[in-house]
Formats: sequence, C-alpha cells, structure tokens
Amino acid sequence: MKVIIIGGGAGGLSTASNIRKYDKDAEITVITRDVNIAYSPCAIPYVLCGEVDCFEDIIMHQAEDYLDRNIKVITKAEVFDVQSQENKVKYYLKDHKEIEHELEYDYLVIATGGSPFIPPVEGTDLEGVFKIRTLEDGIKIADWASNSKKAVVVGAGLIGLEIAYGLKKRGLNVTVTEMLPQIVPRSLDPDMAQIVQEYLENEGINLILGHPLDKIIGNAQVECAVLGDHSIDADMVVLATGIRPETTLANIAECELGRWSIQVNEKMQTSIPNIYAVGDCVEVYDAITGQSTQSLLGSTAVRQGKVAARNIVGLNSEFIPVLNSVVSKIGKLEFGSVGLTKVSAIHNGIDVISGKIRALTKARYYPGAKKIDVKIVCNLKELIIGCQIIAEERVAERVDTMSLAISQKMTCSELASTEFSYAPPLSMVIDPIILAAEEACKKISRVNKKNS
Amino acid sequence: MKVIIIGGGAGGLSTASNIRKYDKDAEITVITRDVNIAYSPCAIPYVLCGEVDCFEDIIMHQAEDYLDRNIKVITKAEVFDVQSQENKVKYYLKDHKEIEHELEYDYLVIATGGSPFIPPVEGTDLEGVFKIRTLEDGIKIADWASNSKKAVVVGAGLIGLEIAYGLKKRGLNVTVTEMLPQIVPRSLDPDMAQIVQEYLENEGINLILGHPLDKIIGNAQVECAVLGDHSIDADMVVLATGIRPETTLANIAECELGRWSIQVNEKMQTSIPNIYAVGDCVEVYDAITGQSTQSLLGSTAVRQGKVAARNIVGLNSEFIPVLNSVVSKIGKLEFGSVGLTKVSAIHNGIDVISGKIRALTKARYYPGAKKIDVKIVCNLKELIIGCQIIAEERVAERVDTMSLAISQKMTCSELASTEFSYAPPLSMVIDPIILAAEEACKKISRVNKKNS
Repeated sequence: MKVIIIGGGAGGLSTASNIRKYDKDAEITVITRDVNIAYSPCAIPYVLCGEVDCFEDIIMHQAEDYLDRNIKVITKAEVFDVQSQENKVKYYLKDHKEIEHELEYDYLVIATGGSPFIPPVEGTDLEGVFKIRTLEDGIKIADWASNSKKAVVVGAGLIGLEIAYGLKKRGLNVTVTEMLPQIVPRSLDPDMAQIVQEYLENEGINLILGHPLDKIIGNAQVECAVLGDHSIDADMVVLATGIRPETTLANIAECELGRWSIQVNEKMQTSIPNIYAVGDCVEVYDAITGQSTQSLLGSTAVRQGKVAARNIVGLNSEFIPVLNSVVSKIGKLEFGSVGLTKVSAIHNGIDVISGKIRALTKARYYPGAKKIDVKIVCNLKELIIGCQIIAEERVAERVDTMSLAISQKMTCSELASTEFSYAPPLSMVIDPIILAAEEACKKISRVNKKNS
Repeated sequence: MKVIIIGGGAGGLSTASNIRKYDKDAEITVITRDVNIAYSPCAIPYVLCGEVDCFEDIIMHQAEDYLDRNIKVITKAEVFDVQSQENKVKYYLKDHKEIEHELEYDYLVIATGGSPFIPPVEGTDLEGVFKIRTLEDGIKIADWASNSKKAVVVGAGLIGLEIAYGLKKRGLNVTVTEMLPQIVPRSLDPDMAQIVQEYLENEGINLILGHPLDKIIGNAQVECAVLGDHSIDADMVVLATGIRPETTLANIAECELGRWSIQVNEKMQTSIPNIYAVGDCVEVYDAITGQSTQSLLGSTAVRQGKVAARNIVGLNSEFIPVLNSVVSKIGKLEFGSVGLTKVSAIHNGIDVISGKIRALTKARYYPGAKKIDVKIVCNLKELIIGCQIIAEERVAERVDTMSLAISQKMTCSELASTEFSYAPPLSMVIDPIILAAEEACKKISRVNKKNS
C-alpha cells in the first residue's frame, strides 16, 4: 500500500505515524514545502516570551527521525498537481524547480493546513510587517523585535494575545488591536473576556478594540498603524488576523469543497474515496449547532490524523463533531472555553441561561488560593452547551471535565450532584464547577417558574 | 418547622446551611459535643507540615456566624437520648452534666460522624499516643511533636501519610507502619502505590509494610512500637488506623443499621421517616459494585447534607452511589483515585484490564514538565470502572474528569476519541488520559482476539 501525505504539520504527521503503528509495510511518503517538520507552532509565543529557551527546542523531530520508522519525508517540496483519476501527484523541489517529480499512490492524504489571512489594506507589504504561522515566521518576528521598541499586533484572538505578551516580555511597548469590541470573541463572552483584558492591561499591554485596521503607513519600513482616528507608532506590526484553509490542491484534485474548506465524511474521507484530508484544511461539524465550522487546532489535527490512518488501514474509526475546546496561558493567567459562548448560542438561535461564579482554586484558608471564574451556559432544558473558565491555575483540566460533561449531554442539575475530589491544597470542598452548575440550576428554575 | 441536627461537622452544617437556603423560617438547631465547629479536619496535616500557618486558620466559622443566619448552634453538648416516638432529644451541656435539656423536632438529622478506631493492643493508653480526628487532636499532636524526635504513625492510608509528612517537616524522624503490604491500599493498586512510596522514602520517611501493630511499650510515656520483629523507638505514636461510624444515638432512636453504619435511602432518610442521617455515620452504595460501603469523605458529607436539606424542605433530591473519588497532596506529590482499583475489582469478581502510561504534564520541550502516571481500569466490555493518577501537578482535576467518565458510563474507546484542550504550557497535545485509554483499548482488543 502506497500512501502519500501532502503536508508535514500535526495532521499530516499524525496520519503518517498512526498508519505506521497499524501497518508496518505501508510505503508512506510525506511531502512538505517547509524546511522544518514536527515542530509545535502553538509554542512560538512561548519562545517569544522566554518561557521556552529557543526555537530549536520546539522542533520535536527531524525528517531523519521519521526515516527510522520507515516514513519518507520530502522537505522543501511543492506539490503542484494531483491527478486523482490516475492516482498521481506531481511535485518539484524548491531548490530545483525545473525538475518535475511524479509519485503514485493508493491513498492520498491532503494535510495542507492554512495560510495567514492578510487584511486587504495598504501597507501590509512593508518591511517590519509580519504574519504568524510557521517557525520561520516566529524566528523573523523574534529577530526584528530585538531591534524594535513599539509593536502593534492586529487581532485579539488567542494567538494575537499570546504573541503580544511575548513581545511585551521582550521589552517592547505593545498595542493589540481588534475590530470586534472584545478580545477572544470566538471563545469568551464579553464579561469573561473583560477579566482577561484587565489582566493584560495590568501587564502593560495596550488594547484598542472595536476598530478594524485601516492601513499601515511607512516608507519601505513600517512606521505606524492606522485604525479610524487611532494612529499608532510602530516599528513592527504582527498580523494575527486568522487562518484561511489552503484548498488549492484539493481543488485541483477535484475534491468537493464545503462552506469553509474541504468536505470530509466522519472517516476523514473526501468526495474522492481514496483521498483523505485532515487538519486546518478541512471543515468539521460543531457538536452543539450541527453546523459546519473550522477547528484550526493542533489537537484536532492530531485526532483527525488518527481517524484517517485507522480508516486507511481498514480499521473503523469516526471523527466526532467538535466542541471547540481551547485553552491558553498568558503570563500567569490560564483561560479556556469549550462549547458555545452565550453570545454564540444566541447567535445560533438557542435560548440559554448561564450560571457564573467567582470562587477559589483551593480551600479558603489555604495560602496561595487563587480566584477562579467559571461560567456555564445551558439551554432551557438544562443541557450544558458551553463553559468558560479563567484562573491563575488549574483551568485546563477543568475545561476537559466540562468537555466530557457536554459531550455526554449532562444537564446542569446532573453536574451539580456529581462527585468531585477534594483536598484543601487542591480544591474547595464544593468545586467551582459545581457552584456554577448550581447557579445555572437556580436560574433555570426561576425561568421555568416565570414561564409556567 | 423545627429541625434538630446532631453534629457540627461537614454533614451537619451543610444540612443546616442548605435548609436555611431554601427555607428562611425553619427553626434550625445544631447540637455538637465539640468546642469548635466548621473547621476543616482534612487540613490538620497541612498545618502540621507548615503549609497552613496555624490551627486557627482552618476554623472557617464560629457558632456566632451561624446565629447571623438564624441557625442556633449549641456547642459542648452531649445528646444522650432520642425519643423518636415523641420527636424529642435530650442533652446536657458538658460543663453542667447535671441539668437535662429537652428539645422537640419535626425533623431530626443525625450527623454524628465517626470515631477513630483504636487497635485492641497493649499500650494505646500511654502518654504520647494520639488518635487523629478533631482539631483538638491536631493541636495535641503538634504540641507534643515540638518536644519529640521520633514518631511512629500507624496506618498508611491518606491521613496517616499526610500526618507522617507533617511530622517529618517538623524535623522528626518518622516511621509509618501498615499491616497490609502496600500504602494507600483502598485507593491505589500496588504498582501505583509504589510510586508514592518511593516519593515518601526520598523525603526521608521510613516505611514498614505488611506488619500489624503488636503493642506499644512504655513506662507512663510511650517508648517504642512493636510490630513482629520490628521494635521502633518512638517518643510519640499516632494511630491513623481508620474511622468507625458513631451510631449510638441512631441505635437509641431505633433507626435501622446496615452492615457498616446507619442505613439511609437515596433521600438520606433513615428507617424512621422524619429522621435523616448524613456524613461518616451513614453507609452508602458503591456506584460500580452496588455494594454498601463507607465513604468517610468531607465532600460526601457536604453533598449528603444538601440532599437531606432539599428533601426536608420538600424539594426532591437524590444522593447517588459513590465513586470514592479521593485526592491528596503530600509535599509536591499529588495523587488521586476514583472508582475501583484493579485489585478491588478482582476482589469483587469483576474481570478487568488496565491501561497504564507514564507521560508528561506539559509539552515535552516545555520547561518544568513533570512526569505523570495514569492507570485506567476497565471491564472486558470496555466500560471504565476506575482510574488512578500521580504527578507533581494537575492531578485533582483529571481525577474529576475521570469521575465524570465513570459516572457517565463511558468506554475506554469513547474516552480515547474525546476532545481535550491543548496548549504547550498546560498539557501534551494528546492528553495522558487519552494515552492511558488507548493503552486500555489495545489490551482489550488483544484479550478479545484471544477469546474469539
């Protein structure tokens, strides 16, 4: 069995490794345009802020390591044609563009990821304007930052904020701009976003919300970013304005595209049976709304790679709709979200209530107890459909607990009577999640009383 | 409505507070033999080890604080009779034993807790031999320890180990003895207990396993503890040999007792309809085996108090069978368990396999990543019935995640395809829980292949 995988990111390499796990004889070839493979793009901000020593640290494997597992990786190579009728791909090496190579496959896996969206405004081509996607982007930003004093980061999603904090820690004056009126709009409701915003402002990061980037001004090099009346002096601008799926090759192969990107079934199979697709270039279904959406998470790509691999080797496996479970750490603050926010629920026509509490991460008397904010979103039948958590510790695993609660279709009253572990240095005797669930129950019974 | 609650621990006070939450007019009286109420007995070891400053810190409320909520608390009072036919209790104040008091109730709640089990051996009445249950016990241990050099702690359950670590931190030479051949036998399998044991030994705590206490020798004061061939010099001995439910008053009231303690239905109601019972003095059902068992956890008592209160005020509420979810922190090490261990499953006649992994708490390259051990126990239909986790961080919330997985009757393959959050400073891209679930799946498919 010959398998060709286009793309050396989390999705492509997870597919390759998992096929090898189940089939020791498959001929597996990964073709990637990148120099480096198997690095963690999510870790770039943590190199910038100094928590991880250097960019080399976040490269987990070299192409040669894959050879040891009999997985061939062709780097710096551009696939320019997929002939899905003949089961062939054509590529050239970037250093020898003149020579065309051709490879046959039994199964093709498209894991082409996405590219940064560049806002269609003046000045994005100036020196000192950066996109953020690859390790090389990270290295360029770090290099330029070492001679910079003022940075503007456009986009207050997770990556934008993480990069902003990294640049601040490198001593720059940093302003984050966002066209929406709040930060992290995809994952946090305004009230919860406000808590993160205050933390960032206390860390000395400037925020300009509710203004789209109008243009970047400069003479060869960037000099300032303009948003409406705001003109912000800058010697560097980082565009963290989202990722667009890379579907060119899927298009050439004549795989069907959906609303956002490549359409796949629950086996990660495209409309062409022997072509699979995984990672940022495919669209997924939202577990709550049932609508197609984009996940754009490394952890999703890894799970999709496993599903694709199992189906390619003939084992059954299904990728289930996503809950958009995300978590981040900026400085000391952890925050995460799973399912729908209240705002997105309303936007999707779902009537909801929310239970929100501020509690502590340890017993009240325990030294070092931190405040923790939990917001649980339920529909009017008590079904939990979302949760947001913010604290200086112990957030990520609580988000995972809520991920299970939502996927198992638990109600807030069921959650409120669930058994949680307790020890004074580790938790409150009644867990903050339980307290938030109790708040949600109270609100629902009030709503139901009113309606009856 | 007149409610009398006997006992001022977690169960009694949770019942009182919850009744007040739902009914502002109920006459609520709590009668307790203790001086202090509303303290956290689980925190005593953390005062001993110095993480919490002093014993006063772990007292969360005074009797007067309850008066503010119109809950009357009578301290240092001994209830000596319950006349369940006449709905009356009789008590005296310890300082005035000669005066009998009588109170009538509409509902009685027995929350009499438990008393330390004292092994029936010679020498337990010597000076320098301590039980550990109340705040006063903690204070006595701390006082005596300040003039001691060598301590023996009998019993290697959670409390015994936590106390042992506390005494070690106070500079004593500490030996823990246990009659079973492993530590934490109720919550950890031998292979997982070994990891905790090594940590304790590295911290300089001596362990003697597989030997019951034969006797304590001394002349007025304790001089040594004898276990078979072992004779351990000691100027103090702490007996952490378990808790026996206090059922004397339930007996007097003619409530039915079960195998271990007071029998209650899912409403926390005893065999006498207007008498409820909560906390360490009642028996509960194990969610996996269906057998009656004892919980003996503060968090269980708190949940039971809420259920009893809701039923007393006429709201419906059920206490569900327990998963025995426990967690502890000793020094830097966190460890926890939920559901059955492999050993206890086998003991209960359940055929099981386990998936065990050692992974990391953060991305591999992230500074400060700690090793984490996860063991998931499943029956042969893939149903998860237990989990044990050990690491220097991020254990408690993962135990709670597994508590949900077990209560929701998830299979290991369902868990293995669940969405977990990911960020390099907070987790691995594939969560350790997922890795352990995958191991369990692999083992089950091997067993099933063999059997088919």
